[in-house]
Amino acid sequence: MIPTFPLLFLGRQMKVIEGFGVSRVVESDNPNFKPGDLISGLTGWEKYSLITRTAQLRKIQQDDIPLSYHVGLLGMPGFTAYAGFYEVCSPKKGDYVFVSAASGAVGQLVGQLAKLYGCYVVGSAGTSQKVDLLKNKLGFDEAFNYKEEPDLNAALRRYFPQGIDIYFDNVGGPMLDAVLLNMRPHGRIAICGMVSQQSLSQTEGIHNLFMLIAKRIRMQGFLQSDYLHLFPRFLELIISYYKQGKIVYIEDMNEGLESAPASLVGLFSGKNVGKQVICVARE
Amino acid sequence: MIPTFPLLFLGRQMKVIEGFGVSRVVESDNPNFKPGDLISGLTGWEKYSLITRTAQLRKIQQDDIPLSYHVGLLGMPGFTAYAGFYEVCSPKKGDYVFVSAASGAVGQLVGQLAKLYGCYVVGSAGTSQKVDLLKNKLGFDEAFNYKEEPDLNAALRRYFPQGIDIYFDNVGGPMLDAVLLNMRPHGRIAICGMVSQQSLSQTEGIHNLFMLIAKRIRMQGFLQSDYLHLFPRFLELIISYYKQGKIVYIEDMNEGLESAPASLVGLFSGKNVGKQVICVARE
Repeated sequence: MIPTFPLLFLGRQMKVIEGFGVSRVVESDNPNFKPGDLISGLTGWEKYSLITRTAQLRKIQQDDIPLSYHVGLLGMPGFTAYAGFYEVCSPKKGDYVFVSAASGAVGQLVGQLAKLYGCYVVGSAGTSQKVDLLKNKLGFDEAFNYKEEPDLNAALRRYFPQGIDIYFDNVGGPMLDAVLLNMRPHGRIAICGMVSQQSLSQTEGIHNLFMLIAKRIRMQGFLQSDYLHLFPRFLELIISYYKQGKIVYIEDMNEGLESAPASLVGLFSGKNVGKQVICVARE
Repeated sequence: MIPTFPLLFLGRQMKVIEGFGVSRVVESDNPNFKPGDLISGLTGWEKYSLITRTAQLRKIQQDDIPLSYHVGLLGMPGFTAYAGFYEVCSPKKGDYVFVSAASGAVGQLVGQLAKLYGCYVVGSAGTSQKVDLLKNKLGFDEAFNYKEEPDLNAALRRYFPQGIDIYFDNVGGPMLDAVLLNMRPHGRIAICGMVSQQSLSQTEGIHNLFMLIAKRIRMQGFLQSDYLHLFPRFLELIISYYKQGKIVYIEDMNEGLESAPASLVGLFSGKNVGKQVICVARE
């Protein structure tokens, strides 16, 4: 099985679109990787890839964890959740945490890590099926469908009458603007993605930044690649949580390379339920 | 002399507008303050005030520093600059620093502290007189009149071809939006004020927050009142710098309580040059 997942940048001098994937080594002149090894890292959207940049490749020790989890729970999205929550959000036990796009590849792990940390966690998503997963499978305290809320500010006031300590932002736009009105003093906002703005030619303006002052809010953008020194610690913790049954991970797997373009486009309208994975080949 | 300065909030249950001022004690039943003492802190916009909340009052040790500096350089605005620069901006020697409203009560000290720290400092202001002060009296490396720049993004690219590490934001609005396009990786933005938006019924939207992610920018609002434990250290440093001639402070002093309302309004169109002070009485 070689699941692969497109990143949101395209290869610069390459003819092939790149994405994070799990691959089996067929041939190698690099002593670190032998034929038969399973590796995760950037590869092409293709059945066979020539990988010349091997520094970021990681050899997979196969055990009872699904191989595809190495592009999700144990890959870039999982590590984004880990680094963003622990290193950017400065969580405290008892914090009120809000996660947008909460059933997505990153959000679902953020919420579970926050629960394990002793926080109160609410997530937003765009379908009732996702809301149901958040509440009944992923262990969020509450969840709501933002598409059914004509007034996001009112919705957040309802779910956080005492305000929000941590907002893990995957969407930007009007949700971020509404959250700003509902933050508690010294709150933290981790800016992880702005998927709501990605398809717009002109982004929607954010009007409530003045709240940053009165509430002394820290708002911080981040990339997981700045925290790679923590990757071994991340793997250890998440594998341990997973094996103890303390976390679950939801994937949306499509079959065949030919399903990749439509799956990529679907991300921007929230068609995927959980981490989008493309199964290119099974063993 | 009893200079007083209006804060931007009005007394809640009081009939008198409050502001930071320097006053001489006429009568007191508080053992910490004796008749004749000079104090700085919140007082009324009036010639004689009954001050019942004395916890934040500070007794002034009179020396050769102008009394009015205790509402500016050594008062709330000066401490805002100190706390914002050292505690929020995480400065490093050699950083590229941009300050808006740079000749104002806070900005002029931020720029000078940044220079003393070994940073490269550019300020923006709204008149050529202020730009001249920034370059020739306050020691900024460069300064520009934002009202003469049809394209703020282009102006910032001109003054920071290598990008901005620290933005000390006193204005918000379109300048903040342009700065976001010009930040360096891991840049810091201290949100101190949004004076450009204060008189607008609907604030202007900020469109470039997506830059927070790619550049991993930390944007943080703050209030000086969270850092009062550092006030003694601040006084010691700034008085020492001042006495060594390493910093100067520009005031705009208007005479008479009756000038206070117009002076307050003038702040929002940048009429003041330097810290706005009202001289209510001289000794």
